[in-house]
This record gives sequence, structure tokens and C-alpha cells, in this order.
Amino acid sequence: MTESSVIENRLERAREAAAERDLEALVCFPSSNLTYLSGFEDEPMERHLFLFVTPERELFVAPEMYDHQIRDASPVEDVRTWSDDEDPTRLLEAVGDDLDIGSGRLLVDDRMWALFTQDLRSTFPDASFGLAGEVLSDLRIRKDEAELEALREAARISDHVSEQIRALAGEAIGMTEAELAAEIDRRLEDAGGSGVSFETVVGSGPNGARPHHRHGDREIESGDPVVLDFGTWVEGYPGDQTRTVVFDGEPSERFLDVHEAVLEAHNAGVEAAGPGVEAREVDRAARQVLEERGYGDEFIHRTGHGVGLDVHEPPYITSENARKLEPGMVFSVEPGVYLEGEFGVRIEDLVVVTDGGCERLNDSPRGWQSL
Amino acid sequence: MTESSVIENRLERAREAAAERDLEALVCFPSSNLTYLSGFEDEPMERHLFLFVTPERELFVAPEMYDHQIRDASPVEDVRTWSDDEDPTRLLEAVGDDLDIGSGRLLVDDRMWALFTQDLRSTFPDASFGLAGEVLSDLRIRKDEAELEALREAARISDHVSEQIRALAGEAIGMTEAELAAEIDRRLEDAGGSGVSFETVVGSGPNGARPHHRHGDREIESGDPVVLDFGTWVEGYPGDQTRTVVFDGEPSERFLDVHEAVLEAHNAGVEAAGPGVEAREVDRAARQVLEERGYGDEFIHRTGHGVGLDVHEPPYITSENARKLEPGMVFSVEPGVYLEGEFGVRIEDLVVVTDGGCERLNDSPRGWQSL
Repeated sequence: MTESSVIENRLERAREAAAERDLEALVCFPSSNLTYLSGFEDEPMERHLFLFVTPERELFVAPEMYDHQIRDASPVEDVRTWSDDEDPTRLLEAVGDDLDIGSGRLLVDDRMWALFTQDLRSTFPDASFGLAGEVLSDLRIRKDEAELEALREAARISDHVSEQIRALAGEAIGMTEAELAAEIDRRLEDAGGSGVSFETVVGSGPNGARPHHRHGDREIESGDPVVLDFGTWVEGYPGDQTRTVVFDGEPSERFLDVHEAVLEAHNAGVEAAGPGVEAREVDRAARQVLEERGYGDEFIHRTGHGVGLDVHEPPYITSENARKLEPGMVFSVEPGVYLEGEFGVRIEDLVVVTDGGCERLNDSPRGWQSL
Repeated sequence: MTESSVIENRLERAREAAAERDLEALVCFPSSNLTYLSGFEDEPMERHLFLFVTPERELFVAPEMYDHQIRDASPVEDVRTWSDDEDPTRLLEAVGDDLDIGSGRLLVDDRMWALFTQDLRSTFPDASFGLAGEVLSDLRIRKDEAELEALREAARISDHVSEQIRALAGEAIGMTEAELAAEIDRRLEDAGGSGVSFETVVGSGPNGARPHHRHGDREIESGDPVVLDFGTWVEGYPGDQTRTVVFDGEPSERFLDVHEAVLEAHNAGVEAAGPGVEAREVDRAARQVLEERGYGDEFIHRTGHGVGLDVHEPPYITSENARKLEPGMVFSVEPGVYLEGEFGVRIEDLVVVTDGGCERLNDSPRGWQSL
């Protein structure tokens, strides 16, 4: 659980940011923003649950049944509840009167469901609306020491399990992707992680050519390239690492060339990262290697994404993003090449920008050999 | 995977509903609505991925890297893609021109993130907006035979694991809630389920008084009431079942009285359910028992929720919902009593409304005794 003093400090910065921008309120919904600002964590749900942060104060609107849990988890003292036999929009109106909001600008959680933004629009018809990310992503984008510690531990667990799985070597032949994924999930938990940070990807042979294939019934064959992309949560922060491995047998010449190219692109991306560098320069460095080696058209996604309370968050490492990198930013560098009907290769580490350059959070072997 | 003919039939009904209500389009985002109408399933994501359904046709807007996966999973043939180095709102504008939408009414997915509803509002500033649930929840609320079969199998797995866990008896004493939750999750998977349909609840002793407590480090003690609420996915449909068990030792007199009252309320709710009955009559039947036994104030939530592609969906069994139940509707009946600082009791089965009444999907023991 995040310390109250950390949460109070974050709330203070959010209130200041709201005042600077002349906002009436930020309105968060169960999401990483709400967790960041309150310490309370839950899945998005169909019941009205909001954290309002104005330039002066903050309060929860919550289902009655969450009252105690919110008070236990969060230093926010003002918790207004509604029960299942009440219309929650009445409480929203009362809160609006109390906070004197509804005629200015409200920023709603970027991941708030339309179900609720519609209600806020109906309750506050004269307000104008924007996204809370305009304010909060800047607060969240540089990680503090406690956050980095959790991210490092999550990366360490990924590395540990990656090495264990790689060492299966010939034993992995004949397993289905789903079986291998279950094995990975189990080992992540055993190594101290808490659930998977996203559905584990085991993309064997042609399935590896689908960047977001999860896992299926295909049995891993000798000589198959297998894309392994997984991570687990530590203290609310995720791991996210990819390796492409051949468990047994001889891969094709084409695979060897592609793997070498992707690894070179990955390293070029990591080397390009550092303070003051634009995010797109990292993308360019990786992309250029693959273009020069003739695989530019087969690298069909961005080079990376920020990682924090969300597995995907700013900064996005795209060909367009001119945002300058700063110390404390954490993101993935994960170029890939996808040959439809044949195989895919992706290699991914998380990195943190430092004062002098950048540091990898992952350090397990990046080669394709099982041992 | 849902058969193409089933998807095509659903799409036809959605197009008809859109035409009847004079809508320009339904716009779905990765969610159960999108899965229901296309067969393609994914987590909500930060990239623009929409299914547009107009009175005449349907098409996907999707990241390039999802192109093949969508085509494999869905009979929708028109898939327009954008790549990570393009601005996806350009594609939205082009699609708007092509479908001739933007001056009428658009219904967006109830769970679409504000990030995307903001983009749709900017791209189509002259359109009016509502929620797709207005149309789709009516299509989804009566389950067909294939859906019921999946729900029955998910319930059977919950029952099976419930009996196994109950049989731990004294062995559960000294386990932490988290350890018992991990054991439940493992057994759900072993019994043929696919992941958990929500984070498993193990609420021991006073933690059981928090209806949405998940699990923590508390060790289960002799005499503790323990709320066990869990389920797993089968073919995209969830289980959801709750029992309150004393693994070993003697519970308090007060617990015995509460458990008896909750079980009586649960049975009263199930007996009240049937075609033509209003949802709130089911809530009333259960609530009345608890009021008469002096626990009305401690039953702090609705009696149940519909279950389908979402774990929580219409019909909601609340004190206000006058919706008449119809054959094929599936929902939970789960009254509970929560005594802060002491313990909680909740008992939950899923039921399906039939022509003559209703049928329970769960049938494992509902008593508190471990064996």
C-alpha cells in the first residue's frame, strides 16, 4: 500500500495543477489515476464511483458498500455514499452544489466509461469537458524511487522466469501454447508476482506473426521460433518483457537473419534513449536498422510505450512523438518483425531514463538459443 | 469461437434496431458488445479500435497490427486499418464521410473510454450521442442455448471447486486468504475453466463484512466464517457463486442466526423469480426476509445482477427495477448481511428464468458446515 504522505503529496500537486489551469475539478473513475491519487484500487465497475479533486479539496462519491474499504485504503476523508436503492445522480447533483462546480471546465478520467461521462454531462450540462490525462500524465510520467523499486522487482521476476522457461529446451516441444502460458503464469506467481500484467503471449511458428496473438492450442514444434511476452505485478507495477526463442531444433536462415536484425534494432533503440532526446528519436533509431536490413514494412507497430501503474501509458515511443525524455521515465523498447504465415520476432526490455542516459530494467539473455 | 452464422444474425438484429430508432450508427469499442456483435475479443486498449454498425452495414476501424486477427475471428469483412505512425482521427473522418454519418444520432459503447468518446465528439461535432446499451442490452438480455450451455458449464465448475474447497475443512485453518484464493484459482483452471471471472473473494472473519474485500494476508482461524465468492470463464461466459463456510471449530450463535436468515432470503429470492415478475419483486422477496429477521440495515447492496458476456450486466435485481423478467434471462440471487468488525454472510446462485419459473445453475451445498 502506498504511504499516506505520498498520496497527500500527489493530491497537493493535482490540486495545484487544477488551480493553475483554472479547472473546476478532475473527476477520476476506478483506474490507475484514481489509484495514483487516492491509494484505493478497484476494477472499473457499473456503479458510480468517482474521486473529485478541485483546486481546494477532494472527495469520493461511492457505493455504500465500498465505504469502509475506501477509508481503509485512502487518506481522503470525505467519502459520500449512495446505496443500491438510491439514484446516484442525485448525489452527483448534491456534490456539484457543494463543490460549486458545473459552469466551468471538468477533466474526466481518460478511461471513464461513456456510461458515466454521459451522466456527468447530463448532471452538469453547462460544464465543458476534457481529459484528466492532460494534467495527470505529467504528474505520473516521472517515477519516484518507490515506483522504480517495484518496477525493478517486476523486471527481475520476468528475467528469472524467462531464464527458467528458456531452459525447458526440448521439454517445451509438443506442449501447446496454452500449456506453456499456464506454466509461465504459475512461475511468475511462484517467483513472487501477483497475477499477470497482461494475458501471456506464446506465439509459436506462424502465430508469432500476429503481434497480439495470446496463446492457443497449437503445439510447439522443433525449429519453431516462439515469441514469449509476459509480466507480473509487483506492488501495483507491471513487468513487460519479450524474447523470441527456439526451444529445440534448427531454425531457418531467414529466422536467423530476422532475429539478428531485431536484436540490433532493439539495442539501437536503447542506445538512443536518454534525457533530452525526443521519444521519436528512439523509434527512429530502431526503425532505421530494420529499414536498412529490408524489414521496414514488417515492423508494423510503434517501438514502445511507457510503463507505470498502467502497462501502456505515456510516453509512447512512436515515429511522431516529439516529447523530450526525462530522468525517471520508464518505457519499453520492443521492435518486431512479423512475416505473415511464417513467424514473428520481437525483443523487448523496459528501460528507465537516467541523468546520463538510460538503464535497462531487464537483463536476461536476448538470444534465440534455448540454453 | 462463436459461429459466423450466429454473429451474422446478431448483426442483422442490431442493424434493424438501429434502423427502427433512426440511428446513424452504433459504435462499439473492445468490450462484450464488440465481442457479441463481431466474435472478435480483446481488452480495452489505448489504440483506436471500433466497430461501426449502421442500419445498412458494419465495419471495423482498427490498428494495422490487429488486421489479421480481426479477420480470423470475425465475419465482418470491411476492416479499415491505421498504423502507429498515422493519426487515427483521419481514418475516423474518412469513415464518417463514407458512411455518411455525423449529423444524426450515434450510440457509443457504454464502456468506451472518455479518451475515445472525446475523439468521436471532436470528429462528429454535429452528432448527438447516446449509449449503445439502449439497443444492445435488449438483444443480449435473453440468452440462447449455446450461451446457456456455457453458463451451465461455468456454474458446474464453480460447484465442483466449491465442494473441493469446503472439504479442506481443518486443513484451511492457518492458510492466509491469499493462499486459499490461489488454491481456488488453481482448481478452477484444473477443472477446465479459463482464468477467473473476477478476482476471487476470500473474506475471513471481519474481512467478510466488506462485501468487496478480495483477499489479504489474514490467516483463517478456527470458528471463522469465510465468504467464498468466485467463478471462471467457459467459452467467454462466467461463473459467479458465493458460499459462506466455517472450515473448523464452532461459529457464534449470532453467525448461525445470520446464516439461516441469509439462506432463507436467498431461497425466497429464487422462489420469487419467474417470467412476468418484475426484477424488483425478487429483490423485495429476499430483502423482506432480512428485514423481518432484523438484518435489513445490514443488507447494503442489491439482490443480484444479470450475467452473460459481462459478469455484471442487465437485468439488475434492485429495489427499483420494474423490468419484467423473461425466459432466458440469467442473473444472480445473492443477499448478504455484513456486520462491521465481526463477519459477513453472502449466499449466491445464478438462475435462469424459464417458461414456468426459474432454474438454478448452481447446486452445491449452501450450508456453513465444511463437510
